[in-house]
Amino acid sequence: MASIPHQALNPPIRTLLGPGPSSIHPRVQMAMSAPLVGHLDPYFTSLMDDTVALLRYVFRTQNKLTFPVSGTGSAGMEAAFDNFLEPGDVAVIGVNGLFGERMVDNAQRTGATVIPVTAEWGKIIHPEDIEKALKSQKKVKLLSLVHVETSTGVLQPLLEASKLAKQYEALYLVDTVTSLAGHEVAVDDWGIDICYSGTQKCISCPPGLAPFTVNQKALDTLQKRAQKVKSWYLDLALLSAYWVTGRVYHHTAPVSMIYAIHEALAIIAEEGLEARVKRHLKNGAAFHAGIEAMGLKLHAEAGHRACSLTTVRIPQGVDEAKVRQGLLNEANIEIGAGLGPLRGQVWRIGLMGYASSEENVVLLLNELEKQLTRQGYRPEPGAGVAAALGVLRAA
Amino acid sequence: MASIPHQALNPPIRTLLGPGPSSIHPRVQMAMSAPLVGHLDPYFTSLMDDTVALLRYVFRTQNKLTFPVSGTGSAGMEAAFDNFLEPGDVAVIGVNGLFGERMVDNAQRTGATVIPVTAEWGKIIHPEDIEKALKSQKKVKLLSLVHVETSTGVLQPLLEASKLAKQYEALYLVDTVTSLAGHEVAVDDWGIDICYSGTQKCISCPPGLAPFTVNQKALDTLQKRAQKVKSWYLDLALLSAYWVTGRVYHHTAPVSMIYAIHEALAIIAEEGLEARVKRHLKNGAAFHAGIEAMGLKLHAEAGHRACSLTTVRIPQGVDEAKVRQGLLNEANIEIGAGLGPLRGQVWRIGLMGYASSEENVVLLLNELEKQLTRQGYRPEPGAGVAAALGVLRAA
Repeated sequence: MASIPHQALNPPIRTLLGPGPSSIHPRVQMAMSAPLVGHLDPYFTSLMDDTVALLRYVFRTQNKLTFPVSGTGSAGMEAAFDNFLEPGDVAVIGVNGLFGERMVDNAQRTGATVIPVTAEWGKIIHPEDIEKALKSQKKVKLLSLVHVETSTGVLQPLLEASKLAKQYEALYLVDTVTSLAGHEVAVDDWGIDICYSGTQKCISCPPGLAPFTVNQKALDTLQKRAQKVKSWYLDLALLSAYWVTGRVYHHTAPVSMIYAIHEALAIIAEEGLEARVKRHLKNGAAFHAGIEAMGLKLHAEAGHRACSLTTVRIPQGVDEAKVRQGLLNEANIEIGAGLGPLRGQVWRIGLMGYASSEENVVLLLNELEKQLTRQGYRPEPGAGVAAALGVLRAA
Repeated sequence: MASIPHQALNPPIRTLLGPGPSSIHPRVQMAMSAPLVGHLDPYFTSLMDDTVALLRYVFRTQNKLTFPVSGTGSAGMEAAFDNFLEPGDVAVIGVNGLFGERMVDNAQRTGATVIPVTAEWGKIIHPEDIEKALKSQKKVKLLSLVHVETSTGVLQPLLEASKLAKQYEALYLVDTVTSLAGHEVAVDDWGIDICYSGTQKCISCPPGLAPFTVNQKALDTLQKRAQKVKSWYLDLALLSAYWVTGRVYHHTAPVSMIYAIHEALAIIAEEGLEARVKRHLKNGAAFHAGIEAMGLKLHAEAGHRACSLTTVRIPQGVDEAKVRQGLLNEANIEIGAGLGPLRGQVWRIGLMGYASSEENVVLLLNELEKQLTRQGYRPEPGAGVAAALGVLRAA
């Protein structure tokens, strides 16, 4: 057995302004290197308690079962569908982007019937379309929406749909992967029954965990399941016994990642959730103004644009991949490409968590201008930065 | 929204000699704090290639689909059963401990029929019993065994069962969570079709990933599935498109954890797999000798004792929890309690990865002697350490 060649770990220093992961605070970076303890160590279980309390604060919920799933945001999505749907159930799911489509795939794998409510990629799902779908079925078990569609940058209104879910006695499930701790999310006040997120967006923690919360009404439906939950790893009854009721061993918790999310949540609590949301809104608005001042177009429907994730339409004649590569190679800035039908149509730009700063708004608009100029698209020099600063000064 | 109280991250410095996580090398600890990059960054994809190559080395396989599942070892188990079983299939599963039982639970949730082959907790599964089970069915899709049962410390022989699997045309699935990189594991030479592990045992990386490998013969069976794999998150066809064939976006990889496993695997490659296995065998044998010299009894069947995980029978009159608490509070050493029918009967002691050292063998035997003496069980002073050192000097 000869050994095999491998590189020494030496990552470049990037500014992460794509669809995630976002740049993280140095305190979160350091947290993962804290001394490893066992997952049943009294120190670790006290940190679990803290993490649960901090997550309740961020989700704005009193839900007992509030914890990070030991997998990325997509594992959170799977936990949601896998526990609350089974063969014979009907789910109404909003689909206006890739993550809505993924919800449909997840829901179908449970054996449930899915009624998709579609809208163009870049538009919101309309409440009247949701109601039509709910009305069309004898009994809908679950209504599901994505708060911020990471593929389109659309911010979905959630309140009217919540009322509809109550009216038609369906569980209300919301994906807050790209909104939690960036946009306002109020699980209890908004009547959300099941909610999951990811760590690597506005929470600014490395990817690897999925914050999750579910209320008692939803949990009570688990008693009525005809079949066991398909997934042992994501079975909420087992996870609840570990996280909430008795520290009953389930799987080995990812200790170092829990250190990271604990630190990231602590930073959020110290900043304050309201202040954090205001910061995201302000920097997002400034960036949008800067983009439009450069003569570029925002893809998402006006009035429903997320501040955490922005889709910018690629101007004609511009090689979008060259712009991304130029930003990466010359300025160490990562932005994202379009997905699915928006491939080659948009860039996806994140201003999330620690990365949502005046500094990054100015940095990105300036570097983007340089790359666009090189591609023959010549915005008025400095117009983007000036417009963004105007918004920031007025705020 | 008032903020909420939380503690500053400040874990105690433990020596982790329980059933996992094991203590990690300082280089692995530092790796997680390396600058975060995006999961599609060319730097990260080059690190993915490295990680795959290093995992192939550790599994001793040429399998193309070799990668870390984005979840703990239990997610690896679920990926194995979920992809290769569906309703109508029959699985023969060895059950002589908690993780065999967990395999049965996982397999049953797929809708497959499970034929368990049982043995007492602490004994191996006998090949003749496996053959009886294989013979009893018209067609068995999969035969599954745990290499080292973390609940009992039994090292299961794998070669005869491999021949039986070939003879009865069943896929051969092996759990190497507590053996990989500690005991000899040779996926290709031993005819293992599907194999998963965990990071937090003999690999000495924090928990959070499940090394996984599967050969083409097993992958070919995926084409013949009647139903989609139940799990989107663990669907190997999708994961293969991300890890092997085209870096097609699936979920956001847990970047910092990949840094950690890359570093842990690099350390293994630098030590050399053979040298590492020898080190585990030597320290395990020394520890076993020390335990017996103290008049204590090993629970696992003689001749089939793992060196990575040892079960020590609790002497009559000794309060097992007080011994564990004493070790933790006075010496910062973690050892594990018994599980299931062995609760209160045994301690579970790990000498895994970075933690498998002469230093830790001596440390633990000495501290254990102190705690036992306090409990009224008085081994001859220093006898355990002396016996262990005798084995180590002779090696």
